[in-house]
Amino acid sequence: MMRVLFADKPENWPRYEAALNAAFVQAGLNAEIFQPGEVAPDSIDYIVYSPQGPVQDFTPFTRAKAVLNLWAGVERVVGNATLTQPLCRMVDAGLERGMVEYVTGHVLRYHLGLDATLAQQDGVWRHDGGVPPLARNRSVVVLGLGALGAACAQALVALGFDVTGWSRTQKEIAGVTCLSGADGFNQALGRAEILVSILPDTPETTDLLNAQTLALLPKGAAIINPGRGTLIDDDALLAALDAGQIGHATLDVFRIEPLPAAHPFWAHPRVTVTPHIAAESRAETASEVVAENIRRGEAGEPLLYLVDRARGY
Amino acid sequence: MMRVLFADKPENWPRYEAALNAAFVQAGLNAEIFQPGEVAPDSIDYIVYSPQGPVQDFTPFTRAKAVLNLWAGVERVVGNATLTQPLCRMVDAGLERGMVEYVTGHVLRYHLGLDATLAQQDGVWRHDGGVPPLARNRSVVVLGLGALGAACAQALVALGFDVTGWSRTQKEIAGVTCLSGADGFNQALGRAEILVSILPDTPETTDLLNAQTLALLPKGAAIINPGRGTLIDDDALLAALDAGQIGHATLDVFRIEPLPAAHPFWAHPRVTVTPHIAAESRAETASEVVAENIRRGEAGEPLLYLVDRARGY
Repeated sequence: MMRVLFADKPENWPRYEAALNAAFVQAGLNAEIFQPGEVAPDSIDYIVYSPQGPVQDFTPFTRAKAVLNLWAGVERVVGNATLTQPLCRMVDAGLERGMVEYVTGHVLRYHLGLDATLAQQDGVWRHDGGVPPLARNRSVVVLGLGALGAACAQALVALGFDVTGWSRTQKEIAGVTCLSGADGFNQALGRAEILVSILPDTPETTDLLNAQTLALLPKGAAIINPGRGTLIDDDALLAALDAGQIGHATLDVFRIEPLPAAHPFWAHPRVTVTPHIAAESRAETASEVVAENIRRGEAGEPLLYLVDRARGY
Repeated sequence: MMRVLFADKPENWPRYEAALNAAFVQAGLNAEIFQPGEVAPDSIDYIVYSPQGPVQDFTPFTRAKAVLNLWAGVERVVGNATLTQPLCRMVDAGLERGMVEYVTGHVLRYHLGLDATLAQQDGVWRHDGGVPPLARNRSVVVLGLGALGAACAQALVALGFDVTGWSRTQKEIAGVTCLSGADGFNQALGRAEILVSILPDTPETTDLLNAQTLALLPKGAAIINPGRGTLIDDDALLAALDAGQIGHATLDVFRIEPLPAAHPFWAHPRVTVTPHIAAESRAETASEVVAENIRRGEAGEPLLYLVDRARGY
């Protein structure tokens, strides 16, 4: 019988126990799941992993055939020198849907001006006969066109938005103006009334949104960042918000999480903080991906979502 | 040369002037547009109409071949005894898109709990490791599956919601559980975590959402009404909100508009008032519909969106 280690934080075990066992049965796997410390590390075949779990040193897991990350992001494990096993990212249909719902919800919130609506419950009927812009006249830019970014871009196209996507390498997505490279990046920022950043955390993306690049956006643009906290230079964003260059920012990810109570983002009138909720793995759908990868590993088939260690994602 | 009367309120002429003339040229119509009082009523061939305009008595327009309403709703004109000409509703692609954007935006606002997000910018990181529900586990019910309701239901399906639609006569829409009739109505309300009402204003729909029917919704349900103000018994809704039976309501239409400043909806902590903005005709797209109907009228072809006077819409 195969041995699988559950190396996420122990609090998550209750919501994964039934889901993983069901997915293993569904995939025809004869596997038993253990918590860290329950059995000898060198008896483990697969490690279900998150950076919040107790495993930092992969050296004792001499038999492990793969490390199956429960998170989409791998930046907290990809550089681990003790990791010699193949590493797989999570591409979870539930996580992807959650991201799409978060992004479309906040894009529509900015598009419709919902914050003002909620603030204006004061008895004044503000209807001047004018016409609010339609989504087709609202330019939304998605930075990052991996599985999550592409799904968001497609959902925004379906809602009628004028969508531009930018990625490191050129992509093609129906209905989306796809740009790439450094020139494409500047061009994308220049048209971003609403900017959504879903890039991975790599050396190239660190501080990608800084004083210089934020200045390229149309004045008053809104930013939604459910990607990674490192994409944004916090001080530059605060300065751009104070100067009116950026109209509003909704941030789900931060350099330090939980975001410290004293961080100026919390109190800023034009910043909305959400507590890293946009891309939650769902136990049921994530377990199906884990089971499929173990099945593939056992059958000698290529693993899904294998991380390119050199590229970093 | 044909004579067309612009009988919307005069303030709207500036945004219609260029759009109507362009649409007439595009449709190959040789037409001149007049304001009320500029020429004799019995010289007018077509009336571009809204209930906000100055024409109440259609008797003098003996030559007019059709009244082309700029609004989707016709309840303020359909009962006009002086109206003997064919009456057409507006089915404006721009209006439809605006409605879809309003409805998807407010459904996602409830689904994601955006009001709480905005209220909780207090330095407390509320992430308990739990998973918010996905749209697939959120039941949204759309009352009314005409052009606008069907478009909203389809957009909600595309976002992944579990969508039920109800209409007077049975409809079929891909991905939507379609119900009809009285039993279907009760069944639809019973599953409405979020209820969207886009029904027309007819004798049958007046006070459709009353104390009895509001009690059929799951406790804490949210209501979005961009349809007609008469659909809701205001006092019953306020009582259901105070009792917690209804969790929140977003209302765009009212029995009296502008909604009087003293109306309790304004001050209610669980009501959001928007000033009849969900279904605005867009001059450009609405003008294309007007031009197409005049072209049809002149060519002897059936008019689009002709109102059934007996049915009321």
